[in-house]
Amino acid sequence: MRMSDVMGTTPPVHVVGTGLLGTSIGLALQRGGVAVTLEDASPSALALARDLGAGTIPAAGGPVRAGEDAAAQPGPSLAVVCVPPDVTAAVVVETLTRFPTAFVTDVASVKVAVLAQLEAAVAAGALTPADLSRYVGGHPMAGRERTGAAAADPDLFSGRGWVVVAHPTSSRAAVLAVRTLAVDLGATPVTMDAAQHDEAVGVVSHTPQVLSSLLAARLVGVPEAALALAGQGLRDMTRIAASDPRLWSAILVGNAGPVAAQLAAVRDDLDELVRALGSAARNGPLTHGAMAAASRAIAVGNEGVARIPGKHGGAARRYAEVVVLVPDAPGELGRLFAEVGAMGVNIEDFSMEHAQAQRVGLATLSVLPESGGALEQGLEDAGWRVVQA
Amino acid sequence: MRMSDVMGTTPPVHVVGTGLLGTSIGLALQRGGVAVTLEDASPSALALARDLGAGTIPAAGGPVRAGEDAAAQPGPSLAVVCVPPDVTAAVVVETLTRFPTAFVTDVASVKVAVLAQLEAAVAAGALTPADLSRYVGGHPMAGRERTGAAAADPDLFSGRGWVVVAHPTSSRAAVLAVRTLAVDLGATPVTMDAAQHDEAVGVVSHTPQVLSSLLAARLVGVPEAALALAGQGLRDMTRIAASDPRLWSAILVGNAGPVAAQLAAVRDDLDELVRALGSAARNGPLTHGAMAAASRAIAVGNEGVARIPGKHGGAARRYAEVVVLVPDAPGELGRLFAEVGAMGVNIEDFSMEHAQAQRVGLATLSVLPESGGALEQGLEDAGWRVVQA
Repeated sequence: MRMSDVMGTTPPVHVVGTGLLGTSIGLALQRGGVAVTLEDASPSALALARDLGAGTIPAAGGPVRAGEDAAAQPGPSLAVVCVPPDVTAAVVVETLTRFPTAFVTDVASVKVAVLAQLEAAVAAGALTPADLSRYVGGHPMAGRERTGAAAADPDLFSGRGWVVVAHPTSSRAAVLAVRTLAVDLGATPVTMDAAQHDEAVGVVSHTPQVLSSLLAARLVGVPEAALALAGQGLRDMTRIAASDPRLWSAILVGNAGPVAAQLAAVRDDLDELVRALGSAARNGPLTHGAMAAASRAIAVGNEGVARIPGKHGGAARRYAEVVVLVPDAPGELGRLFAEVGAMGVNIEDFSMEHAQAQRVGLATLSVLPESGGALEQGLEDAGWRVVQA
Repeated sequence: MRMSDVMGTTPPVHVVGTGLLGTSIGLALQRGGVAVTLEDASPSALALARDLGAGTIPAAGGPVRAGEDAAAQPGPSLAVVCVPPDVTAAVVVETLTRFPTAFVTDVASVKVAVLAQLEAAVAAGALTPADLSRYVGGHPMAGRERTGAAAADPDLFSGRGWVVVAHPTSSRAAVLAVRTLAVDLGATPVTMDAAQHDEAVGVVSHTPQVLSSLLAARLVGVPEAALALAGQGLRDMTRIAASDPRLWSAILVGNAGPVAAQLAAVRDDLDELVRALGSAARNGPLTHGAMAAASRAIAVGNEGVARIPGKHGGAARRYAEVVVLVPDAPGELGRLFAEVGAMGVNIEDFSMEHAQAQRVGLATLSVLPESGGALEQGLEDAGWRVVQA
């Protein structure tokens, strides 16, 4: 038995919403032997998830509800709401009501707005305080540019963080059920409250998305000759600009406060640079303050990027980098793979940078500092052209 | 003889400034048998470049000047000025004067400001129109995060674009000399005028640098728990934020007009989003206009990123992507390399995404669509866990 197949979650689990995340959760649980029932507003999306093996569709409109014969078809121990962020709270309210003994969690990437709507439902009498105690928010830090059940994968959450967002009245058992779900799916649970979570993703996820999109927007009217000069920096910075507008507008509006605060800070920094550079454009490069403003912007960025932890959350670590020219001919990258593999050097990281105009690429292999020399020598001996990193 | 060693440049070449670019140019030319003389304001930087093999240091203060005995020590056919952008024009003026038969080029990443200063020198009588006709600007699209002669490499320019910036009075022979230099160094020459060049790099290089730095600046005050949620998007977007403030402030101020115009456009877009999201934060997510503003920002970004050409300047091309879970144990990535190499599948691209918290990575292998199935099957047969891309 693989360790990854030992599941702590009590079956059955009910998944509401069979898109990318819901279907992936169902696939992973069912693979580990935990029975899953599925529900989706779209009958065709639901059938697809079932056919992929994410779970079964309960007879007669869903799993057992309050008052039905629980012995015939047991109610879920846990329901996971996997619907877009703007409808998450409404579906959580309905799910808590329909399954009065189940713990309920969600996967929405905003948490304060969802919790506020749930608390409003308690205030309005639509939900009891006991119902709310069965809810604990969640946010798996996983996603792909593709969406929908067809892109689902049981390993989607492997190695990712999963933020577990308890609120002041969440029961201990509910928190443990969500934490266990995260671990069952191969993720690492991280505990935060809703406000901490929304501030955090506002900085590390939502603000980067907006800046990537606004940078990419600058390319719309640019001559093709200019685009031909695009290097790896522009490519890296606009990769996430390909994201889905429908999903992302709901996320940005759902986390409007923290995102607006971050974007306003960037706007103010930009404003200062625009003034300083505009002055230099009119009055010459030695204009008082222009160099200082530009230099400060880059220097503060140096400080910020140095704070991003290295892989696996450890301290940022320096590797030796060996850069190799790879001709873009059939089999060349495969030949590099084979020769590096044969050398037995442990490659810590690998990246490819494609040349802008010629049929050649630059492969960067990162290794422990003590292995750099051997790798470089081995590759040169095998006839590769090694470039100093 | 390797094709890459066939050089069209007439020796000797004189390099002024032995930093990363100047030393790399010297190394490449000397490797191809073109004699290079070196000059730098710093005697130790100069000696380092000489010791690395980038060229020789002429006796008695430099190569032959006007009026000296040309038979004893011939003057350079071409001088390449490789000094910071803010001093480039002054050094070009001096170099044109010192070597009255040489063509002169530079490698500064801004071109309008340099040319304007050269034209001012002609207007002031410091330079003749005939001198100016021997100058053609250049900008190799190559660079590294490291600087200085120690980071130099003769293959630095391989496969990169090299913008050749003629001005209205540049001689045809001067343009050809610079174009030949670019090709000798393995680069692909791209012809633009100074204004086109500065607009283009303002969009594809300088604006991304500023946005990367300002995004990274947002991380300075963020709690560590938030940084632990950082994913590949943030990492990709802040990689170039590690760049050198001294070099970049000179570049930004040197191209102040185009950069200020681009940054002002981004600031205006941000301003609109800050207003829309601020309104949503105060009045709720259904506030009129909030969703539309957010959705439009992402959708226009989709349009812009789709314009970036694919590798080698061709149309953006779709590959099949096979994503593999790679445990971070010694030899695992090497084992993957060996097995992919043995399969003989041509890998078009390769990227690694490191998990945030667990010791596992996601390797994405891009192959021609028709090879995707075979690679996936082969990897699964070899015991790898393949994740749907």
